[in-house]
Amino acid sequence: TAKGPNCDASTNMRLKLPITCFILEIIIIILFGVLVQYDEGTDAKLWHDRNHSSHSDYDNDFYYRYPSFQDVHVMIFIGFGFLMTFLQRYGFSSVGFNFLIAAFALQWATLMQGFFHGMHGGKIHIGVESMINADFCTGSVLISFGAVLGKTSPVQLLLMAIFEVTLFAVNEFIVLSVLGAKDAGGSMTIHTFGAYFGLIVARVLYRPNLDKSKHRNSSVYHSDLFAMIGTLYLWMFWPSFNSAITAHGDDQHRTAMNTYYSLAACTLSSYAMSALTAHDGKLDMVHIQNAALAGGVAAGTAGEMMLTPFGSMIVGFVAGIISVLGFKYLSPVLESKLKIQDTCGVHNLHGMPGILGAIVGAIVAALATADVYGEGLTDVFPDVASGEISASDQGVRQIISLAVTLGIALLGGLIVGFILKLPIFGAPPDTICFEDSIYWEVRRSGSFILKAVISESFPANCP
Amino acid sequence: TAKGPNCDASTNMRLKLPITCFILEIIIIILFGVLVQYDEGTDAKLWHDRNHSSHSDYDNDFYYRYPSFQDVHVMIFIGFGFLMTFLQRYGFSSVGFNFLIAAFALQWATLMQGFFHGMHGGKIHIGVESMINADFCTGSVLISFGAVLGKTSPVQLLLMAIFEVTLFAVNEFIVLSVLGAKDAGGSMTIHTFGAYFGLIVARVLYRPNLDKSKHRNSSVYHSDLFAMIGTLYLWMFWPSFNSAITAHGDDQHRTAMNTYYSLAACTLSSYAMSALTAHDGKLDMVHIQNAALAGGVAAGTAGEMMLTPFGSMIVGFVAGIISVLGFKYLSPVLESKLKIQDTCGVHNLHGMPGILGAIVGAIVAALATADVYGEGLTDVFPDVASGEISASDQGVRQIISLAVTLGIALLGGLIVGFILKLPIFGAPPDTICFEDSIYWEVRRSGSFILKAVISESFPANCP
Amino acid sequence: TAKGPNCDASTNMRLKLPITCFILEIIIIILFGVLVQYDEGTDAKLWHDRNHSSHSDYDNDFYYRYPSFQDVHVMIFIGFGFLMTFLQRYGFSSVGFNFLIAAFALQWATLMQGFFHGMHGGKIHIGVESMINADFCTGSVLISFGAVLGKTSPVQLLLMAIFEVTLFAVNEFIVLSVLGAKDAGGSMTIHTFGAYFGLIVARVLYRPNLDKSKHRNSSVYHSDLFAMIGTLYLWMFWPSFNSAITAHGDDQHRTAMNTYYSLAACTLSSYAMSALTAHDGKLDMVHIQNAALAGGVAAGTAGEMMLTPFGSMIVGFVAGIISVLGFKYLSPVLESKLKIQDTCGVHNLHGMPGILGAIVGAIVAALATADVYGEGLTDVFPDVASGEISASDQGVRQIISLAVTLGIALLGGLIVGFILKLPIFGAPPDTICFEDSIYWEVRRSGSFILKAVISESFPANCP
Repeated sequence: TAKGPNCDASTNMRLKLPITCFILEIIIIILFGVLVQYDEGTDAKLWHDRNHSSHSDYDNDFYYRYPSFQDVHVMIFIGFGFLMTFLQRYGFSSVGFNFLIAAFALQWATLMQGFFHGMHGGKIHIGVESMINADFCTGSVLISFGAVLGKTSPVQLLLMAIFEVTLFAVNEFIVLSVLGAKDAGGSMTIHTFGAYFGLIVARVLYRPNLDKSKHRNSSVYHSDLFAMIGTLYLWMFWPSFNSAITAHGDDQHRTAMNTYYSLAACTLSSYAMSALTAHDGKLDMVHIQNAALAGGVAAGTAGEMMLTPFGSMIVGFVAGIISVLGFKYLSPVLESKLKIQDTCGVHNLHGMPGILGAIVGAIVAALATADVYGEGLTDVFPDVASGEISASDQGVRQIISLAVTLGIALLGGLIVGFILKLPIFGAPPDTICFEDSIYWEVRRSGSFILKAVISESFPANCP
Repeated sequence: TAKGPNCDASTNMRLKLPITCFILEIIIIILFGVLVQYDEGTDAKLWHDRNHSSHSDYDNDFYYRYPSFQDVHVMIFIGFGFLMTFLQRYGFSSVGFNFLIAAFALQWATLMQGFFHGMHGGKIHIGVESMINADFCTGSVLISFGAVLGKTSPVQLLLMAIFEVTLFAVNEFIVLSVLGAKDAGGSMTIHTFGAYFGLIVARVLYRPNLDKSKHRNSSVYHSDLFAMIGTLYLWMFWPSFNSAITAHGDDQHRTAMNTYYSLAACTLSSYAMSALTAHDGKLDMVHIQNAALAGGVAAGTAGEMMLTPFGSMIVGFVAGIISVLGFKYLSPVLESKLKIQDTCGVHNLHGMPGILGAIVGAIVAALATADVYGEGLTDVFPDVASGEISASDQGVRQIISLAVTLGIALLGGLIVGFILKLPIFGAPPDTICFEDSIYWEVRRSGSFILKAVISESFPANCP
Repeated sequence: TAKGPNCDASTNMRLKLPITCFILEIIIIILFGVLVQYDEGTDAKLWHDRNHSSHSDYDNDFYYRYPSFQDVHVMIFIGFGFLMTFLQRYGFSSVGFNFLIAAFALQWATLMQGFFHGMHGGKIHIGVESMINADFCTGSVLISFGAVLGKTSPVQLLLMAIFEVTLFAVNEFIVLSVLGAKDAGGSMTIHTFGAYFGLIVARVLYRPNLDKSKHRNSSVYHSDLFAMIGTLYLWMFWPSFNSAITAHGDDQHRTAMNTYYSLAACTLSSYAMSALTAHDGKLDMVHIQNAALAGGVAAGTAGEMMLTPFGSMIVGFVAGIISVLGFKYLSPVLESKLKIQDTCGVHNLHGMPGILGAIVGAIVAALATADVYGEGLTDVFPDVASGEISASDQGVRQIISLAVTLGIALLGGLIVGFILKLPIFGAPPDTICFEDSIYWEVRRSGSFILKAVISESFPANCP
């Protein structure tokens, strides 16, 4: 039998992957043992002490946030995981590596985010809010994964996650704590950061001969249906994503509703633009799977503000148009001119809509008045409410935060890209990218004709 | 190469779909700008004003209803969307048009329902409850979509949604506000209305030569599995659907539980009837995918009442039997005699079980006593509790509401059907119904033999 | 045409399945009518009476537990159902029989669990907590289903469910009520019980000639992707599973978080072990689909205790390793030496991790101190808090409970296995196990070549 893809010793994961996983997990466990403690809502003693005074069990943050957490969790594991199964021969890796790096990143993010803004007396205190934040940070890594999908080994992805989570926590700390910007749904800290970080990594990992794997870099009928599972879960639960860590009460409620209408409007403009730009007036699954989500990204910063459903719809409407245009006209240019091979088009779903969201957030913040927000101003813009800064100052903070986020993402991605380029992490050769059988045991179909057909493109395993 | 399905200029959506989507979305955005405002729970100022007096954040309706809303949302987009993917070559359209018309309908429903029963001082006030109601109204449109599945263009579907949402809001207003009937889970307003509206539209759009597309009007192995994703999400979250807008406390709790037991009993009777009636004693996926859900439909009106788990089970049990019998014996007659080509069998899943649910609701309402409901009577039957009417009057109200619903659905469907019949909306010809490649860019499988096989039935694109 | 699999009259379900379903459902309905009542949270009168004194609607247990219930519900129907679709020709049965026996078991469990520990004045009082418990009991039956998957008729499965639910309720009563052990997430009562019960049933139903169906006892590409839907939903919602019936407040919060970290650590060790042990350093989908979940099982007993995230991670880490090793080295021995044909490897996912979870629970219980738990000790270990027993006594209770669980599971499974072996329930012959077309109407693909290929392995229906 012919020598198959897995015969290349360099992509063999027998030792590389276990060693990486074991070392990382053991380090994490030790750090958790040393640094991490239950917070007031999860510790039996602390909660009951506090509870004795006047609180009831319902005040536990669990009941305010756990349903939202679970929705976010579904977005991370099903949403991102299945969205990437659109490739015909990369479903195991899309879902499976997504699963692996997410499970790692959420642990590492707990430590990094805790280190930068959750330390109390030398300890990191954790509960449902830190779980949501860890999932958010993980989302950023998965966005970057989308840019390099099909061209990286799981060891490379874990390495990328280590560095990206760390830089995410640094950037988040600067944006939210130092600069005092607002970004509850992460247009900047999650989407813009994850997209541009991933795009620069993809740039550094540029493969001039990737067209040798071109026939696998597309979808088939069923893989597009699997991808729609991912799309729809992201779409449905984005209101929970943007509202998961806003203040209790009207803030969570308003954020969810703004996002709901932004996404609905975005869906209509995405379908319209897809039919308008695609071949023969037919809808393109790539647009539907991705552009229809841009409204959630673009409402990430301003969603908690008094954006109004009217404003949300305009934002979503524009985001859908930008996103489809990006897929149609910008992505080919990014690939041919800037040498950025963006497998999932994260620039169109997370990059440009993220920047749009940041700008919208800055504008809406700058227009905030006590007349509109009433006492609620304290929840949304505490420094404006306290009189420390003006609303337009808040707007400036938002714009500076966008610039900082772009800077850290681009610089970080550049460095991490060069690290990942070291030829020791088992990246696949150009000829067999977008192919599960390099890293996965793939069982063949029962029918011999299909077997024959498939084995032509995918030679059998090594003897 | 032969001229393929997409060569028929009339089905080309390049201009028709974008123009429709853009016009509709722009109208919606303008109307939202003029008419729509945050309600007390979503407005920063109003909530904090109110909150100052004595309320806590937990009283925000978000925490009572948002988890239910998300379950309903999943039913609308994943449940209905994937339930219809059972067709072998119509998965993109099933999920994708479901997505499009739902995203449109929920916006339009916010306006129409707000106009009819949510105006306060000339403005429509919105929050999580209006979001649930908008999703409910959308569900009705998707039921009608099931009746015409595979035979309509997306432009036709959007037009249908405009009219159906409007008539839904009119009927809902008459039934709930004018007649004072109860229908929290929408046996009448959602299921009966959507089913009979769609059936009449399908009647008007009758295609005498539809058997030319017969070979595509069936499932394949994997498409049936995708459809089971839809079925199970509908089944699991139906308790949330029926309880989403009932009164707080025992009402939501009881409604969810009644629906849970109704569905469980329905599942057993559906399996039993499927084996009993189908070929060779084998189970038929069509029955399992649909009939097992009839228990949720049939508990839609009485679910919030003191139906008891015992009563719920009887209702579900009967609904499952009726539904399978409908698929087996009634649907063929509807097609051959009444010329109603009901693709998904919505008459069996939503039509008859909806009527059953309405009748059960009337009976249970007529039997209500203060002895059974205690102070809770005010929540369920306020006019009976206040002494304004007797319980049997309430039962009469329910039956009149069913008649009104049927009347508006049938008349409305008739008119809308004739509008959709105008030959300018890009409906597919009889020979290529149930086929994604008319409206979607469909990528071919990688293997050349499969390609050859498939291209025989589906000619290549136009040159 | 050749005589196909369905020609064997003994597997014909036309009468057997309907009769079984109808009799069971009618018995259940009668018993519900006689025995079951709304509890305080679901009864209109009782809730409003209670409510009048001082409570608000938010105190209704619905708001504390319904989101968790829905997550558990998804695990039962989507999680277990799709996890088992990995077999190439058994997707309908995996999802469909899972659906049927779950819908039956949850009704029967309501009665059996109510009978053993929910009777008040001769009546079984039900609400959201009993719904969760019914789903839990159902989970146990589905675990056993995994062991016999592909080799049993739906009638056998329903019979198994009747007996297993009953014995589950007996064991649960002994463990929780008589012995006073704690097991909120069911490491013992659900996982250990379900796994060993199912393994013994599989042993009794041993098929010496099962290798005649060997070619169907494996996955294909798409079936593995469907199975990942099941895996991910189980993984994501396991925190809700373990915390669904713990005490309100910090207990639910802590349990969810402990499980979250246990699963994350387990995922890394599962991937590591899979690459280390599998062919050519490639990841094996069987390990990823199953072993990555062992962390949830192993945190089932101790999750509600002050296990700490650090301890949770160690537990998950070990569970993942044990589980992969079990798949690789123990399962083949169980089959060849002990004649246990464990289709899904439930011994590796539920059996060993369940025992691990029980032991961890005993250790953590024995180490409990008032210093660590504060006033919260009353919630977790009421008898220790009251001074009735010492913490190490509690540890002993836990270990005795594990022994009792194993004993009842093994003895019960043995008896039930022999009942199921009676040759009247329509079990498939050895030559056509793991095959949907025995019990389901399976539609063929449209393309004639595929038809030809497939029909070679699966002859057409009988004339």
